[in-house]
Amino acid sequence: MLEKTIRVNALYDFYHPLLTPKQQSYMSLYYINDFSLREIADECNVSRQAVYDTIKRTEIMLEDYEEKLHLYEKFKKRGDVIRQLYDVLDNKKNTEVMLNLIKQLEKLD
Amino acid sequence: MLEKTIRVNALYDFYHPLLTPKQQSYMSLYYINDFSLREIADECNVSRQAVYDTIKRTEIMLEDYEEKLHLYEKFKKRGDVIRQLYDVLDNKKNTEVMLNLIKQLEKLD
Repeated sequence: MLEKTIRVNALYDFYHPLLTPKQQSYMSLYYINDFSLREIADECNVSRQAVYDTIKRTEIMLEDYEEKLHLYEKFKKRGDVIRQLYDVLDNKKNTEVMLNLIKQLEKLD
Repeated sequence: MLEKTIRVNALYDFYHPLLTPKQQSYMSLYYINDFSLREIADECNVSRQAVYDTIKRTEIMLEDYEEKLHLYEKFKKRGDVIRQLYDVLDNKKNTEVMLNLIKQLEKLD
């Protein structure tokens, strides 16, 4: 999958409740169900251009939400810390390291 | 502080980047700096009713964002798990408990 597609999918995961039903519908058909613009246009009885415009505008909205709320960025940072916690458990390192990781987690809330 | 005020303050913390500058201004004066409606009205050269309407409408928007994104709810749940992790560290319980807590954290992302 292209890097951009992965990012839009992730942003859609976080912010889709803030989108309109129409935006949600076009975005999930295009990015999750892999429909073409033409197929969505036919399915929804609108022009291909209208579908394209809505999807492009929605992608900009998703980036705007991320710029304001940073949910995807925080998710990735928490994921990093959680992976380190697992690593600490696996390697039976000392509790000082664990404590430090938990403190990092707290700051990410 | 009243329970409602605590909640609005918390929701404001999470969602204020999604508000307009005017909404941010009235809400922070009212909820953070403890201005009265009258004081905000005088400060901003608008009617007391206009300030009241904006604040009430913004409170509804904040609850609407929370209903859609659950950021405050997730924050509280993560806080609970983090407190339990500290407790496990303090009491030197076994790693199985720790592993279970980390898994819970992962699910909360």
